[in-house]
This record gives sequence, C-alpha cells and structure tokens, in this order.
Amino acid sequence: MQLANPKRLYFFDEGVSDKKLLGGKGAGLAEMTALRLPVPPGFVITTEVCEEFYSNGERLPEGLMDSVMGAMKSLEDGTGKRFGDPKAPLLVSVRSGSAVSMPGMMDTILNLGLNDQIVEGLAALTSDDRFAYDTYRRFIQLFAKVVLGIDEALLSRVVDEEKKGRGVAADSDLDAASLKRIVRAFESALAKANKPLPQDPKEQLEMAIEAVFRSWNGKRALEYRRQYRITPEVAKGTAVTVVAMVFGNMGNDSATGVLFTRDPTTGARGLYGDFLANAQGEDVVAGTRTPKSIAELKKEMPEPYSTLERVAETLEERFAEPQDVEFTIEKGRLFILQTRAAKMGPMGAVRAAVDMVREGRITKEKALLRIEPDQLEQLFHPQVDPRKKELPIAVGVPASPGAATGKVVFDADTAVEWTKKGEKVILVREETKPEDVHGFFAAQGVLTSRGGKTSHAAVVARGLGKPCVVGCAALVIYQQSRLLLVGDTKIEEGATVTIDGSNGRVYPGAVRLLQPELKDEVFELLAWADEVKRLGVWANADTPESAARARKMGAKGIGLARTERMFNAEERLPLVVSMIMASTDAERKLYLDRLRPLQKQDFKKILKEMQGLPVIIRLLDPPLHEFLPRFEDMTEKVNKLQRHGEEKQLVEAKRILDKARQLSEANPMLGHRGVRLGLTHPEIYEMQMTAVMEAAAELMNEGVKVMPKIMTPQVAAYQEVKRIREQFDEVKLKVEKKEGLTLNVKFGTMIETVRACLDADEIAKYAEFFSFGTNDLSQATFSFSREDAEAKFLPFYLEKGILPDNPFETIDDKGVGTLIRLAVESGRRTRPDLEVGICGEHGGDPRSVYICHKARLDYVSASSFRIPVARLAAARIALQERARS
Amino acid sequence: MQLANPKRLYFFDEGVSDKKLLGGKGAGLAEMTALRLPVPPGFVITTEVCEEFYSNGERLPEGLMDSVMGAMKSLEDGTGKRFGDPKAPLLVSVRSGSAVSMPGMMDTILNLGLNDQIVEGLAALTSDDRFAYDTYRRFIQLFAKVVLGIDEALLSRVVDEEKKGRGVAADSDLDAASLKRIVRAFESALAKANKPLPQDPKEQLEMAIEAVFRSWNGKRALEYRRQYRITPEVAKGTAVTVVAMVFGNMGNDSATGVLFTRDPTTGARGLYGDFLANAQGEDVVAGTRTPKSIAELKKEMPEPYSTLERVAETLEERFAEPQDVEFTIEKGRLFILQTRAAKMGPMGAVRAAVDMVREGRITKEKALLRIEPDQLEQLFHPQVDPRKKELPIAVGVPASPGAATGKVVFDADTAVEWTKKGEKVILVREETKPEDVHGFFAAQGVLTSRGGKTSHAAVVARGLGKPCVVGCAALVIYQQSRLLLVGDTKIEEGATVTIDGSNGRVYPGAVRLLQPELKDEVFELLAWADEVKRLGVWANADTPESAARARKMGAKGIGLARTERMFNAEERLPLVVSMIMASTDAERKLYLDRLRPLQKQDFKKILKEMQGLPVIIRLLDPPLHEFLPRFEDMTEKVNKLQRHGEEKQLVEAKRILDKARQLSEANPMLGHRGVRLGLTHPEIYEMQMTAVMEAAAELMNEGVKVMPKIMTPQVAAYQEVKRIREQFDEVKLKVEKKEGLTLNVKFGTMIETVRACLDADEIAKYAEFFSFGTNDLSQATFSFSREDAEAKFLPFYLEKGILPDNPFETIDDKGVGTLIRLAVESGRRTRPDLEVGICGEHGGDPRSVYICHKARLDYVSASSFRIPVARLAAARIALQERARS
Repeated sequence: MQLANPKRLYFFDEGVSDKKLLGGKGAGLAEMTALRLPVPPGFVITTEVCEEFYSNGERLPEGLMDSVMGAMKSLEDGTGKRFGDPKAPLLVSVRSGSAVSMPGMMDTILNLGLNDQIVEGLAALTSDDRFAYDTYRRFIQLFAKVVLGIDEALLSRVVDEEKKGRGVAADSDLDAASLKRIVRAFESALAKANKPLPQDPKEQLEMAIEAVFRSWNGKRALEYRRQYRITPEVAKGTAVTVVAMVFGNMGNDSATGVLFTRDPTTGARGLYGDFLANAQGEDVVAGTRTPKSIAELKKEMPEPYSTLERVAETLEERFAEPQDVEFTIEKGRLFILQTRAAKMGPMGAVRAAVDMVREGRITKEKALLRIEPDQLEQLFHPQVDPRKKELPIAVGVPASPGAATGKVVFDADTAVEWTKKGEKVILVREETKPEDVHGFFAAQGVLTSRGGKTSHAAVVARGLGKPCVVGCAALVIYQQSRLLLVGDTKIEEGATVTIDGSNGRVYPGAVRLLQPELKDEVFELLAWADEVKRLGVWANADTPESAARARKMGAKGIGLARTERMFNAEERLPLVVSMIMASTDAERKLYLDRLRPLQKQDFKKILKEMQGLPVIIRLLDPPLHEFLPRFEDMTEKVNKLQRHGEEKQLVEAKRILDKARQLSEANPMLGHRGVRLGLTHPEIYEMQMTAVMEAAAELMNEGVKVMPKIMTPQVAAYQEVKRIREQFDEVKLKVEKKEGLTLNVKFGTMIETVRACLDADEIAKYAEFFSFGTNDLSQATFSFSREDAEAKFLPFYLEKGILPDNPFETIDDKGVGTLIRLAVESGRRTRPDLEVGICGEHGGDPRSVYICHKARLDYVSASSFRIPVARLAAARIALQERARS
Repeated sequence: MQLANPKRLYFFDEGVSDKKLLGGKGAGLAEMTALRLPVPPGFVITTEVCEEFYSNGERLPEGLMDSVMGAMKSLEDGTGKRFGDPKAPLLVSVRSGSAVSMPGMMDTILNLGLNDQIVEGLAALTSDDRFAYDTYRRFIQLFAKVVLGIDEALLSRVVDEEKKGRGVAADSDLDAASLKRIVRAFESALAKANKPLPQDPKEQLEMAIEAVFRSWNGKRALEYRRQYRITPEVAKGTAVTVVAMVFGNMGNDSATGVLFTRDPTTGARGLYGDFLANAQGEDVVAGTRTPKSIAELKKEMPEPYSTLERVAETLEERFAEPQDVEFTIEKGRLFILQTRAAKMGPMGAVRAAVDMVREGRITKEKALLRIEPDQLEQLFHPQVDPRKKELPIAVGVPASPGAATGKVVFDADTAVEWTKKGEKVILVREETKPEDVHGFFAAQGVLTSRGGKTSHAAVVARGLGKPCVVGCAALVIYQQSRLLLVGDTKIEEGATVTIDGSNGRVYPGAVRLLQPELKDEVFELLAWADEVKRLGVWANADTPESAARARKMGAKGIGLARTERMFNAEERLPLVVSMIMASTDAERKLYLDRLRPLQKQDFKKILKEMQGLPVIIRLLDPPLHEFLPRFEDMTEKVNKLQRHGEEKQLVEAKRILDKARQLSEANPMLGHRGVRLGLTHPEIYEMQMTAVMEAAAELMNEGVKVMPKIMTPQVAAYQEVKRIREQFDEVKLKVEKKEGLTLNVKFGTMIETVRACLDADEIAKYAEFFSFGTNDLSQATFSFSREDAEAKFLPFYLEKGILPDNPFETIDDKGVGTLIRLAVESGRRTRPDLEVGICGEHGGDPRSVYICHKARLDYVSASSFRIPVARLAAARIALQERARS
C-alpha cells in the first residue's frame, strides 16, 4: 500500500493535531501540549498505520518498531528515565483513539515496561514496594486480558482469594506482601495457560500496539460503528498513543479523576466530576471504590484543583465545547491525560450550547448544529430516572413517549370509574378498539400485549400525548380473572405499575420519575432554528387540546386532523354503529345528519384554536368494520345471549356480527377504506365536508380567521380525486350560498399509495395540495404490513443488517424517497404552486426531515411531541445545505 | 366551429367512401355503388355535422336542411318519385352509422315521408291498401318511439288489442281495415300525449336527422363505446344516411333478409343467413315471425338468390373479409341495403382468415391482425352451448375457464370416494385450503362461495386446468346438513349442477356442453404468429401434467413453477404441518429432509417433461399459516375433542391452534412470506434448492438436457437477493462437488414489490433474471387487496368508469407499467444480458402482452390455456410495431 503521508509517528509537540490522522485522543494531547497544559510527553502512531496493519494481513509494517523505539528514545531523553532500565524505568500507556470517539469500545494498556526485575527497581527507586507491585499486578491483569486474550475471571479470582485470605474488602487494602503473592500467582496462571508474560519491554510494546490495532475490528467496536453509522469515510482506523506514565497510585497526595467542564445534566458551568485518591484510572470506572465528588478535591488538594479550573477554561476557550477531561495527580502534580467533547444529557447540551452563544464562544448556527434533534424529545416528557437502575419486568414496543405510574385496570369503564374516585390508572388490554377510547382519556398511560406502532392504541395515545407501550408479548392477560401474568409474576387489578413509552419498559410498582424541566434555553434554541429553517413544521392533531399543545410546541399549522378519531368518542360510537348498520342510504343519512352537528363542533373548536393557521382535515379513512366491536367480543356476546335467551338483544347482536362478517377483509390495510369508501358511500364525505364548511362559515361570522383544508385519503388514481373534488365544489357552493359568504377552504389529497405518486401529474389538476402519508406509502412500497413485519421479521432484518433502518421510522430514501421526489416534480409541473407536505410518523424523524427538505417539500407534520425535534432537524439541514453551497 | 371540410353531404355515387366521414353504413353503400351493386340511391350527412350539432347546443347547423332538401331533389330526379307528393311519394329511411360498428346502439327510422294524405296516394299507386297502411303504421311506430320519445308499449298495446279483437296471431295476418284502425288509434294516442305526428315530410325528416344525431349520446351508445373503448379518435360521431326506401313488404315476391358470406360459427364458405317474405327489416330482428334459412330462398326466388351469390363474391373480393349483408327484394328485384364486416365466432373467424390466406385474398399478417386474441381461448374448453338459452341460478367470479357438469359434493374426501365409484362430481366449498387439494384432482370442477380470482381454489384449479367458479356469494352452504341453498332453491349433495368457469355461471342440472373442436386452421394460424412475434411465450405450470399440456399449447419454457403446490399434495401436507410445528431448527430440518426426496421427484418429472427448455422454479412463497387447517375447523375440532375428552389428541390440536394463532397476520399478503420466510428459516430454501439441483444432476447423468432456474419471491431490497444468492452458490458448489459435474442452473428473482422495481439496479448485481409478478405488484401499486377489492368496490369502480380496466386483468400502464419499465431499464444498465419476463396472470391478457412487448421483455408466462392467446397477441403487437416504423 502506498501512503500519501509516509510519516508514521508524531510527537505531541510537533504542532500537528489532525484528528483523522492522530485519532481524537492523540490530537487532543497534541492540542493541549500546544496550549502548554501539563501533558506527559508521548507520541502517536497514525491511523494510516492501522490501515497498513490490516492491508498487511494484521502485521505491523516493516520498520515501524524501529521508528517506535526511536521515539521511545526521545521520551527517555525528555523524562530522564529509560525504557527497560530497572534503575530509572520508563513506563508508558498504550492507548487507542479514532477520529470519532468510541468510548470503551477499544483497548488500552497501562504501566507497560515492567517485568520481574524492573518492578524491583521501581520499588527501590520509590521506596514503595506496595506501589511498585500494585502497578505491576495492574499491568499484568490488563496485558493478560487485552494482549494475551486470557479470561479476565481467571486473574480476578486470584485477587479475590487473596482478599478473602487477608480478610480485606478493597484492592487498596492489600499490602505489598499480598500484591507480591498475587503477581506470583498471576505468573504461574499465565504459564499454565501457556501464555507467559513477555519479559522484554520492547516485545510488550510491540504486542500492545498490535492488540490496539486489532481492537479496531473487535466485536464491540464493529457493533458500535454499525449502530452509530460510523463509516470508513469518517474514521478509517485507530491511532495508537504512547504516553509516559504518571501515577495516581503513589500515595495519598496522588489521585486520578474525570471531570466535565459543565454539568452534563443541567449544562451549568463549573467543574463536575469524580476522583479517587491513590488510584489509577480504571479504578474510577470499575466501581470497586466509590469516587468522591470533584468539589472535595478543592478541599483536599487546593492547588491542583485551581490548576484544573484554569485548564478547563483554557480548553473551553480553545474548543468552544464542554470538555470531558481525564487527569492524574502524581504526588501533588497535575497531569492532563485526555480531553474530548463531553457527552451531555439533553438539557445539558441545550443549555451549554445556548450559554456558549451568550458567552460569545460560538455562533447560533454552531449551537444548532451541536444538538442532535432526537435528544430534544426527552425534555418534554416525564422520564424514569436513569440514575436509579430499576429492572423492568417486560419490554414492549415504545409507542408514545413519556413515563407514567398508575394502578392496573383491565377495561375502559373501570379506568373511568377509578379515575373519578381520584386514582391514577394504567389501562391494560390485549389490544384496544374505538369503544375503549374513553378509557384513554381517563388513564395515565396505556399498555397492550398486542399490536405495533400503528395499532389503534398507539395512534390514539400519541394523539392524546399519553405514554403508551404496545405489543408487550410477555404479558398474559386474564380478563375474566382481572389478572396479569408476566412470567411468574402475578399482577392483580389495582396493583401499581410504571410504563415508559420512550423505550417500551414496564416496571412493577412506582418508579421515581423525573418531571420535564423546560428551561428558557430550549425555547431560545428553537427560535434560532425557526430563523434558519426552510421547511415548515406542522402538527398531527385530532382534538382542540392537542391542537393547543401543538401550537405551544411551535407548530405553524395542522397537517393532519383525523376525523375518525372524532367518530370514536363514547357518545358518538353508537351513532356510528347505527350508521354502518343502516340497511338503506336514507337510513344511513339519518344517522349522518345526527353526527354532522357533533363533527361541526369538533371542527369549530380546532379551527378556532388554530386561528390564523392552516388546518388540514382528512376525510374518513379506516374501513367501517374498524368501528364495530371486536370479533371475539361479539361472538362471546352472542353466545351469552343465546344461553340467556334475551331474544330481541340476541337478534340485534347477531345482526351486528353478520355485518362484521360481511365487512371483514383478508387484508384490511388494502381494503375498502379511504376514498374508496367515500366514493361508494358519498353521503359520508358529504356530511364531513358540510360540517367543516359550516364550521368555517360560523367562525367567519364570529370574526375568527380560519384556514381549513380538506383532503381525501388512499387515493390511487386521479379519477377518484376528480370525483371528490366535484363533490367538494358542490358542497362549497351550497354552504356559501346558504351563508352568503366566500369560504377560504382548499382541497387536496393524501399521497399514500404508490400509484398516486405515479399519477401525480393528473392528480394535481384537481388537488391544490399533496400530503404524503409515508406510513402507508412505506408499507406499500415494501409490501410490508407494518404490524406483521415488526412482530415477525423486521427485528431480524435490522439485526442482520438486511435493512439498514426500520423504514417505518426513517424514510427509505431509495424506494419511498424516489417516489416522493417523482410525485413532487410531476405534481408541480402541472401546478407550480402545489403545496406539498408529509404527515406520516416520519415527519418527526430527523433523517426523514432531511429527505423532505431535499425533496423541496413545504412542510413536515409531526406528532406534537416531535415538533421541537422537527424544527431543529429542519434548521440543521438548511444550515448544512448552506455550508455546502 | 370551423370545419376542415365544409362539404356536409355526399351522394353514394360521388366516389367518396371515407368511413370516418360517412360512417360504416354510408361508406359501405358508397363502395357498393361504385362496385355497381344494386343499391337504392341515397346520400350521407357526415359525422362532422354530428360534431357541429353537438357544439351548436344540439341544434342542426344553419343551412343544413337547405342542403338536405337539395339532395332530396336529386333523389327525386333519380327515382322519378317526389318527397311529399301523394301521387308518386318518395319515402326514405334515415339511419345512423359511425366509423366503428355499434350494432343496434343508435336509431333508425324507416318509411319516412308518409302522412294521412300520402298514405292514400301510396295505396292508390300500388293498388294495395294493406301495403300502404302497413308501411304507415310501421313508420308511426318507429317515429313515435325514436323521434317523439313515446313509450313503445303504448302503441304496441294498440296492435295487440286489434290482433286479439280479430283473433289473429301475427302482424302480417292483419288486413287493411285493421291496419287503418290501428293508424287512427296511434294518431289519437299521440294527440293525447300532446305529441302529434308532424304531417309535413320535411319536418319529419329534420326531426329524424336530429334524433339520429342525439342517439349518438344516448345511454346505450355511451355504454357501448365505454365498454368497447371506442374513443373520439376512432369515431367522433354518427353520420346520417338517407336512402330511398325499397319495400320487402309488397307481397310474396318481396322479402327482406340478412346473410353472412361465410358461416360465422364454422367459417365455411357459402351464404348463411335468414330471410322473411313480405316483411320489412325489423321483422327479422323482432322475432315475431320465424325467418327461413337462406337456402330456402334459392328455391323460392332463384334469380335474386343467384344475384346474391354474385354480390357476396364481389364484396369478399373487394373487402377481403367475410361480410354481413342486409338485403331487400322488392317485387323480385334485389337491393342491397348494407354491408359490413361480419362478426364471426372464434372458430369461424380463424377458419375464414386462414382460408382467405389460402385463397390468396389476404396475407398471413392480415390474418393474424384479424383475430382478436381473446377469442382463441374459448376454442380450447368445453362451453355451455350458447344456442340453448339456459338460465343460471347464480353467477360468481369466473376463475378458471371451461364448463363442467357433475354431482355436488361438499368435501374433498367425498369427491375422491364418489369419483372412485365412477361418478363425476363438482366440489362445492365455502373456500378451499391445501388440505382440500386431493378433491380438486378428483372433481370435474370446483365451486366456492367465497374468494376471488387469486384465492386458493382459483389458483389451484387454473394450475390443474379445471373449470372453477369462486366467490359465488348467492350460495349458502350448510356443510353439516350436506345442503346448498341458492335463494329458495335447495340443492342436496348428489344433485347435478353445471358450472361455467369462463363466465362464472352456475346452472341447475346437466346443461348441454359443446366440446372444443380444434381444427388445423388454429394451429396453422398460431404457427404464423410464432414466425412474427418477438416475445417468447412460456407457461405457468406446477405439475408434470400441466407442463406437458403447456408444451402442447406451444410454450417455450416454464416461467413459473410454484413449489408450494407440491407441498399441498395429500401425503405431504402432514410432513409440512410437522415442519411448521417443529419447535427447534433441528426438528424442522428432520421433516425437511423427508420432504426433499419428494420435491426432487417433482422437479425431475417437470424438468424431464420440459427437456431442452428453461424451467423457472420459485422458492416457497406463501406464509406458513396457509398450510395449516382453517381456523374455524381447528376451533371446532378442539371444542369437539374437549367434549369427548381424548386427551392426547386434544393437546396436539390445541398446539396446532396456538401455532396458527401465533402465525396469524393482520395483512397476510404483506406479511411473513416469500424471501422473508426464506431468510428467517434458511433451512427451507436450502432444502428446495438442493432438491432442484440434485434433480438436475440426476437427469444430466441420464443424458437429459435440463435448464432449471431458481428464483426467490417477494424481494424488496438487494440485500435479500444477495443473501439468497450466496446460499444458492453454496448449495450449487456442494451438489456439483458431490455429483462431480457442472450444473447449468441460473439464479434470479421475482420483481413483485414496488421497492424491488426501484432497487433493480442493485438487485441485478445478484440476479441473472427478473420475473415480474404483476399480481402482487398491481396490488401493491394500487394498495388494493385483490380479494377485497373485487368483492367490495372494484365492480363499482369499473361500472362508474373510475378505473377504465380491472388492473388485475390488464396491466395498469401508467402505474404498474411505469414501474416495470423503470426496473427493466435500470436492471439492464447493471446487467445488459438480464433476462426479463412476466409470470403474473397478466401474461395471458392481450393488452398486457402489448405492454410487455413495448417494455422489451424477453417473454411472458401464462396459464397454459392462455398460451395461444399470448402467442397471437405477441404476434399482433410485433406486426403493429413493424407497420408503424
């Protein structure tokens, strides 16, 4: 392999700090050296050597070790110590580090350069047997595990036995004699495994470098890169950093620690972190001793502490980003061993970014680019406190975010009843139906054992902003016995559980929840986002309450108001069922006439809530059988009535069952629904359109500015749109004539079938706007039923990398993205001012927002809790595009 | 409106015979005039005037009637009679005629030019009161109905009463006095309806012309044009032909009739038709008198007959196509009133075309273009004799063509049992499942009350070439009582029924069937087709028998052999069920190992049958739950076992029921099936691929030339194909190594999801061929479940013209066609020699074949009975393309 840059090693003080070449750790050490911060001397073997290593059949390139030993010579000169010399031994750490931080995913060796002889020299030199042997046993333990591939347990068992024999609890309580015995035992264990510790420090160093390179393709590292999509363009290998050791384990005036320059949770400025006296780095992480807060350090070692404060300021000044810093204090002297961008919690990240704009360190644009949009969502919901390590009893599909605690109830009526008595309840069902909706209003959250993210429970809960976990297959519900079984755990009605709809976890009992804390900084950041984004962000909202919430979240319109949700309300469902059961069109019209004023009130409330902003109302979408009770429930009812012989009720129950049978479909997703239903039962859409327009007219008369838009779902051909458009024009004319005014109401269509994408040129003749329904469109494009796919094979596909992403979470660019672009282009060719948006679940997914931006959509519409995410994502893609052009 | 040609009228003898301008009737009369055949004089008002009429608000253009009256003057000069002159009255017929024949769809008026005075003159002139008043009452009857819009029944009641009063049966038995009374009664009825007969012949003529123009947009005409896709480009309006009347009702030396120049059923050359003495044209059609065969005419009127023979020869010579001729004999003198291309039955059309090639009248190409491909199919199946007007008791969905008679049985076991006893049976079920397949083999035909064209029953029956009617909702089956109810008709097990799978009809009892008569001409025509077509025609065939049938029908390969059909055989299903129920992969492999030799035998037989030709074998496609018994049957079984307490059987039955519940899906069409199943259960595809390759190897060793190809269904992403390809390569290597030979086996994929079309460039890296599954692709493109759509809303869509065609019968060019073209282009960009075909039902549909040809596919694969259709269609599109270039 020909290398562009044949130089394989860089010293920290050479003035080079290219992250791609030196890795994050090496570049940071070089930067800090240039800033004259107290960094031990060292050098970096570049990531290009890692590539060489792999193209060379996992062997170090010819001559590398000569260069390395040359560099070690320089370290010896700088420190006055000598590598392999028992009289003044130079020890080093050998550490990994790639361009992108992969914390804990690759290997590190500390204290390298010791052997049976040198350890004695170290003891003599420091007059500290304990320190020398503690250091040696640490070295052997790490080297054995990382380089020799010895099972960790084999050696830690030795340490444990010694501690037991001595009757001590902590490693630090072991005396020199013990540590010596441990070292001997280690050595004989290694010998027995036929993998003795090499006594030649140069051999140790060579083996350690190889091991670090190998760890780049270790299982953990590969998995991490896959998960975080770290591609070879971003990071092509690990560098190896070789640093002269400093020792935090040289007594009580020594210490090691980690600090953040701002509080990662709150974002507050000031040192935040932990340290351990008389310890080395891994002790802080291992958790065998409880570290102290960094505030303690101020008292215990004031001088190093104040140096740390200056270092923190210098680093923030240089990097303009909160830093995560490793340090060691050796006999009162501070050394900085690493600095990197701190991983902040969501609020911490936002506050730090906004503060840094205020402090003049970064621009607003930089602040926007620094926050991952997905992080924002958590800020708006109660969360299970991540610091308490609670164990869930089951994990289902996270369907509506946020956590909630309440008493288990097994039906909607009980939920309402108990809530009236002041209880908080969680509604637990196998699956839900429209007849359960009053229970949703009452409950704190909803938990089901069946269904996926598009199940009835999931969609309704998201609409209401209530936490919801669905498809939790581990639950076995005994409805009759009011009992829930999870494995061997019995949960009776009334027992308390906690659910977390952000990750699908179900906990027994009440778990400590963190309430959302929305600081001003969040709103400030989002305001900046609105200044730069091109995409509009609207909301999916079906009720006045969720419309109000969406508006508060910054929605500039409603992209999807589902009218079927309004059909579901408890007092309306009987009317809807009667409407379905009607044996003539006239009878059906009767019930529709009774539904119309109710729908009109719904529309009035939503339109008023959103005054001055557009509201897209979708005509009825689901197949009619969805409004009927569950098949099993109906069958059971009929059986029951048959036994008790209530003739009239039995006849009616049978009639409904027959109707359900007649309406049932093999593949309801692709059945008699949406515009197909609208065309075969024109009286339904006529009622809905009339209700919308009458609502608009009444509000206009009240002086409220309204912008309703009506759209039709499931369109596959322009002829369907043409017919509904004709009906729309007729209804409009009729209402305008009756009310004596001109309505400002537009007509458009969902684009959620593949064929609609391909017929968009014709459809745009009749539709004034398009709204992509990417849920259904993704299902149709893949021929995946989301519900079945997520239950049956999609997890396998994602695990095996057959699909890179769940297409129901992130728009599939190659398939669905192509269809969207085709439709936008051909639609706008017909109608240049065609308004185009998206109202599928994807509207709140950052990568999908990027695709929508690039397809030149006008807006994305998202569930209200995803609106901040979408606003930020829209801003980021606009900024990235600007940067590229 | 500006007309390109301002000339509105053409006389027959002007030498102009442009069909588009003069309509078929007018052009034919002009042609015959030029051929000096005995045609009465007349003229044509052009189709352009019809357009003027409509753009003029349904009014005749200014000045038209002046031109018409000028033309009438010329007729007067030619005939020596005068329009409106009682002394020598000129009567005319006013007839419609558009560029495309629409028989009976528009209006005609005969005998125009009579009034109360003129009728007397006519009587005096002919000395025949009866003739004059018969002619007058005919005129009034037609004029009242067509021009005045009087209910037909009103006047025919008058005639009926007169006949009753006189005690006569036929109109021709009424004497002059009766006819005069009838005319008076007509006139007073019209006066009462306030629509008196205009007495001015010019006014009559003007009103008649308007009425003919109006009939162009009459309900019947519009419906006919929609159904036969007659667009304005093909025919933009009707012409009006005005012809001097000749009279077939002037006594027994007068007659009127219709003849074909060749027998429309058999195609045999010679006059074929009917006539009536002393009658006018409508009497032949009306069926009030039984017409005589044209052979009788030879005896009764030898001279006009021999003229007719000469006319027939002249017309065939001129038009090179069998003609359908209207003639009238007036007092021994023959007049030809119309000639047009004869509508021939399927065999008649083929034989006439082939004969005409032999006679040197037309080229082979012309013969091919003359036969509608769809016509051919009927030649290959038994048909219900169309001459017997049997009434069906129910009509279902025609699912597999041909008719069959047999005794009703309600389950597969009975079907087998009775067949063994020598009975012929029809299997009647609500729907069928794999466990019923042995019944299909035994039965003459299959009838179900549920399901559509892609239901299990439909697909299996087509595969076996057995007649099948599905989704016949009028049937109510009482399985337990062995009883079938159709409305009030009870049909018990053992009763005889006849089903016709070509049109979905169900008849009680045994109905006379016509057996297929395949004359040599059919095979000669198809051989010519093969000479010119570019597309290959292959077959869908799952068994050695159907492969043999397909080969006989001219298939040049098998484009789709479904392996799941082989799983269905009676003795294998238990193995398949055990395989599904296996609780470990190892257990599953055990059952697969037992299935493998069985599948290998299947493959050997099919490959041998098709030696020298390619055979594409599709890996398992349906979801596993399809192989389990019906849900209701299982539930019933469990209930039964629970009552009778057979513990072990109950446990097993429950286990299967649980498994079925676990495997059940919300939308099985989009569920865990095809390659998704292949990837999650790799052992299934491994078994199948091994079986194919072992079969091929064994045949190679026997010296048989085999060309197997293996394809994977339901692919949505290249990653899926890549994995299966890897598995394919592994299995191939293994079998080749074991057998010590090199296999000639290719790997490819179905393209039946939308995403596969959009990912074709990548997929083509791993697939050597594509096979479009247009059934599933159409479902996904429209988001229509075929089964649900055809049961619920598609009939409505087709009736209302919301969709021009059923997309499951004819490929939707705009949507599905676009996806096919995209996929072919991008697939071939990656792999220029990519072989591409189609194996959906559409492969046998002529218009779909055209789309496939234009998309440059290599072949279409069709059910064996559609192969002749596809061969002819492929030839026609090749010829049309050649003509255009």
